[in-house]
Amino acid sequence: MALNVYLSGEIHTNWREEIIAGCDALGLDVAFASAVTDHAASDDCGVAILGSEESKFWHDHKGAKLNAIRTRKGLQEADVVVVRFGEQYKQWNAAFDAGMAAALGKSLIVMHGDDHQHALKEVDAAALAVTQTPQQVVEILRYVETGKLPDQ
Amino acid sequence: MALNVYLSGEIHTNWREEIIAGCDALGLDVAFASAVTDHAASDDCGVAILGSEESKFWHDHKGAKLNAIRTRKGLQEADVVVVRFGEQYKQWNAAFDAGMAAALGKSLIVMHGDDHQHALKEVDAAALAVTQTPQQVVEILRYVETGKLPDQ
Amino acid sequence: MALNVYLSGEIHTNWREEIIAGCDALGLDVAFASAVTDHAASDDCGVAILGSEESKFWHDHKGAKLNAIRTRKGLQEADVVVVRFGEQYKQWNAAFDAGMAAALGKSLIVMHGDDHQHALKEVDAAALAVTQTPQQVVEILRYVETGKLPDQ
Amino acid sequence: MALNVYLSGEIHTNWREEIIAGCDALGLDVAFASAVTDHAASDDCGVAILGSEESKFWHDHKGAKLNAIRTRKGLQEADVVVVRFGEQYKQWNAAFDAGMAAALGKSLIVMHGDDHQHALKEVDAAALAVTQTPQQVVEILRYVETGKLPDQ
Amino acid sequence: MALNVYLSGEIHTNWREEIIAGCDALGLDVAFASAVTDHAASDDCGVAILGSEESKFWHDHKGAKLNAIRTRKGLQEADVVVVRFGEQYKQWNAAFDAGMAAALGKSLIVMHGDDHQHALKEVDAAALAVTQTPQQVVEILRYVETGKLPDQ
Amino acid sequence: MALNVYLSGEIHTNWREEIIAGCDALGLDVAFASAVTDHAASDDCGVAILGSEESKFWHDHKGAKLNAIRTRKGLQEADVVVVRFGEQYKQWNAAFDAGMAAALGKSLIVMHGDDHQHALKEVDAAALAVTQTPQQVVEILRYVETGKLPDQ
Amino acid sequence: MALNVYLSGEIHTNWREEIIAGCDALGLDVAFASAVTDHAASDDCGVAILGSEESKFWHDHKGAKLNAIRTRKGLQEADVVVVRFGEQYKQWNAAFDAGMAAALGKSLIVMHGDDHQHALKEVDAAALAVTQTPQQVVEILRYVETGKLPDQ
Amino acid sequence: MALNVYLSGEIHTNWREEIIAGCDALGLDVAFASAVTDHAASDDCGVAILGSEESKFWHDHKGAKLNAIRTRKGLQEADVVVVRFGEQYKQWNAAFDAGMAAALGKSLIVMHGDDHQHALKEVDAAALAVTQTPQQVVEILRYVETGKLPDQ
Repeated sequence: MALNVYLSGEIHTNWREEIIAGCDALGLDVAFASAVTDHAASDDCGVAILGSEESKFWHDHKGAKLNAIRTRKGLQEADVVVVRFGEQYKQWNAAFDAGMAAALGKSLIVMHGDDHQHALKEVDAAALAVTQTPQQVVEILRYVETGKLPDQ
Repeated sequence: MALNVYLSGEIHTNWREEIIAGCDALGLDVAFASAVTDHAASDDCGVAILGSEESKFWHDHKGAKLNAIRTRKGLQEADVVVVRFGEQYKQWNAAFDAGMAAALGKSLIVMHGDDHQHALKEVDAAALAVTQTPQQVVEILRYVETGKLPDQ
Repeated sequence: MALNVYLSGEIHTNWREEIIAGCDALGLDVAFASAVTDHAASDDCGVAILGSEESKFWHDHKGAKLNAIRTRKGLQEADVVVVRFGEQYKQWNAAFDAGMAAALGKSLIVMHGDDHQHALKEVDAAALAVTQTPQQVVEILRYVETGKLPDQ
Repeated sequence: MALNVYLSGEIHTNWREEIIAGCDALGLDVAFASAVTDHAASDDCGVAILGSEESKFWHDHKGAKLNAIRTRKGLQEADVVVVRFGEQYKQWNAAFDAGMAAALGKSLIVMHGDDHQHALKEVDAAALAVTQTPQQVVEILRYVETGKLPDQ
Repeated sequence: MALNVYLSGEIHTNWREEIIAGCDALGLDVAFASAVTDHAASDDCGVAILGSEESKFWHDHKGAKLNAIRTRKGLQEADVVVVRFGEQYKQWNAAFDAGMAAALGKSLIVMHGDDHQHALKEVDAAALAVTQTPQQVVEILRYVETGKLPDQ
Repeated sequence: MALNVYLSGEIHTNWREEIIAGCDALGLDVAFASAVTDHAASDDCGVAILGSEESKFWHDHKGAKLNAIRTRKGLQEADVVVVRFGEQYKQWNAAFDAGMAAALGKSLIVMHGDDHQHALKEVDAAALAVTQTPQQVVEILRYVETGKLPDQ
Repeated sequence: MALNVYLSGEIHTNWREEIIAGCDALGLDVAFASAVTDHAASDDCGVAILGSEESKFWHDHKGAKLNAIRTRKGLQEADVVVVRFGEQYKQWNAAFDAGMAAALGKSLIVMHGDDHQHALKEVDAAALAVTQTPQQVVEILRYVETGKLPDQ
Repeated sequence: MALNVYLSGEIHTNWREEIIAGCDALGLDVAFASAVTDHAASDDCGVAILGSEESKFWHDHKGAKLNAIRTRKGLQEADVVVVRFGEQYKQWNAAFDAGMAAALGKSLIVMHGDDHQHALKEVDAAALAVTQTPQQVVEILRYVETGKLPDQ
């Protein structure tokens, strides 16, 4: 059972790499996708390609729309959407992706620390798993694909 | 053209009442829905009805699922979804609702101050209008329903 | 917020009447639907209208298909589907209705006693509420419609 | 005509292996999927990966949701869903899967003995074939793929 | 439980009137729709409104498309689609409507005599009831709406 | 058979009024919707409500998005979409609406003069009727609703 | 542009083989599917696999449902559905397939002689091409895939 | 992230070739599709394959329907739809394709010069990018697939 997994959310730690490496080490058949995680490129792609804007709003608007081409394809093709909320920042795009994933009927896995538990209760309630570490996500993907548990 | 409008997001100011009163004053044919905005009831509804939980996670989980019965019906029946992001708190449920609204093909109107502009660029990019005040939302609903502009 | 509620499952106790009476007493705006709960009519409707069958299989088959005209309309038009599992019998049609409700994206409320908890874990996992009594269902519908909790 | 077949239901006999071996022996182009059929792993996967729960309900809940990631993908990708009801247990998850398959428009094949005929009449009525043996399922898949009947 | 019923097929006998009168006599809450059953108007509507055609093919084509505006609305809004195959003519439009109804997930009731049984087996297999008389259709609609059988 | 009709396209002649008056004179049960047809309001609504823009592109962009709230609701709720192409201007929004109507499965009626026949062949090919005058549209709506032809 | 083509309808002439051979000769990238065209196997598959029936109706019913597993998969996966109506028989299953294809949004090509033109006008009106010979279907598939016309 | 891109619109310049060559030069994994761009073949395909028509309307109608087999498959399978509006002609089929793409939820990229900005504002408002040159489209596709900006 090959899986398409979309990794959304926080871009300041290497959680994506940990999940990908963990699945590789186990030989799982998982294809990963995610948004462009180069922060500067992601912020400026719109004006870099389509021309500059005086207003910050339209600068961001053009970029956000280009990024949407990629993120919506990633979400639509995913079997599983993993959304991580980090310690800092508003991360509204992560919650927005989670909402899209829920409405599209995707299997949603959320990752966050205890301190965000109450604020994320609506998102968690729509998820099939609430995790704290990349290793837990790896174990879930392993179980879904192979039926094996961590101690097996 | 009667409109169903779902009001999502911040619950600490009276923006919902302002929009509803503004539309009433103009005689518009708009039906409003929203989540339960009584913060305490919303937090505790799950355990109050279904029995207490020792863990805060499951306490919140049971409540968030009951609230989802109402919020998803409201979202699904809406023509227009207005999502307001206030000055404080993470408000991830607001962004989550916006993501669901976008995926369901609803007309999305976002309301927030300038200071949140960059953090909300992905949400704004999915919206048909980005507003700052309840009065702007009233004017949009008036225009959509009657074709009249503010100075008419 | 008017609600359409479909009541599925066990037909040997008066749980449907309790829910309906409870909502009426609170003045809630809820419209209820359910399968034909007259056991004999439900079993024999096919042959009574379309002619007798020698085989029990086809006797039941004709009846089950007529009943499906009603149950599927009820499910499709529902905002909320309540499925009750009683103490006795296999009640596979109840679980079948729950599966259809889940796949159709309906808000699912399950009702059953503790003894069935483990056997119903997959059904419970797809539900937005797991209840034990009709009164709990009434309180959920009250909360969803009015935002009021039991002690309010 | 390659087929994707999801095998749902009873896990105490080797009916899955019989169907798979039967199709292999005939050289059919069928890809099979199913839930994790290791009963212990299936029951405990949630707490094994995500941490223990004091309550049996939440223990089961976490596990059932992880299993749902796999079963829903299997159901959604299937052309044909085979659901077997064995002699024992409630097997509500089997009927739940059948309900999801019906609502998703999948071709449903049911397998059960005569003694369950009446209790399963609603499920049978939604099926394109009601079988009693794995060999019958093999013959159906052979016919669907090659047009050949058992005596050909 | 109010029902929308679309009556499709044979136009040379008064089966539609019999069903409608039968339901009226029982006080059922059923709304009926059907194609235009004035044969001459139905054949010529295209050229009568949009201008004549030299070719019979385009004459019929323009008319069939105008009729499709009505028939597709009727089919899409129906809960139940009744398709009657009479003794004469090819009646391919009746079978075409039945195919559309099946693909749209409508509850399909077929009506025909024994002599057409073999030729209609694929259509019958997609139906929830196969009837021979208008009275049987009335009794089905009565049962679906009220739960009452003919002798009650 | 009540009809919802969306009138899209050219705004420089009174074809909408002619259709509405024609249907009124016949007592037809048709509800009409259309975009805001006040050209100045339609062009400037975005900046009038949401604040001015230096760039003509964003000026128009904000307005076009507000207008989309109305036009998409009108299209989605329509049974029949009438799109008129006038003698002048590019009228790309008319063709855009026609494409949306086709993709949404709406019954499409196109209205244009002979001189645009070749340029509109793809749009006409997706339509159920190609008309030249408002009176023809009135006669189509009359026939669809009542089954009566012009000379009846 | 590889194409999936479903060939439905008349089984007494070799039109399927002509189309397949014609496309092969041109080197087109087309994958064909169709129902089981062995008339005896198609009629008896149900009882041959699932056990005999005394009633002809249920004999046919069981067979028609098994055949539906194959035909619905074929229809659902097709880009283009070709439905041929021969000179004889009622061929209601062909018209039923055409109705399903239309409702599923498939590109429909109909093939029949002039004598059936009037009786098939509703089916033709839903088609993107009305043909008379297998060679015309081959030429259409060639054009769709390569852009080449017969004389090129 | 492999992309399916449909190129719609103007056929008198070599913008399609420029985009394809630009993506090839960058080694991007993009599959392109488009309508038949041989103007004469596109205009005459209907009558060349299906027989001549006296009326220009039906001549065009038959051709437009054959072309629709190809264009709708191309649109439906696309992740990204690029629609170019050239300097001349009405190009209503381009706007029609854009409308279909928007309604199907495709990522829409529009290409046109400044002089068409006002007339295309509704189409632009539905797009995720508004471009002026093929090179900008190449850079967007590069960014979406690789995350690299022009200067990287």
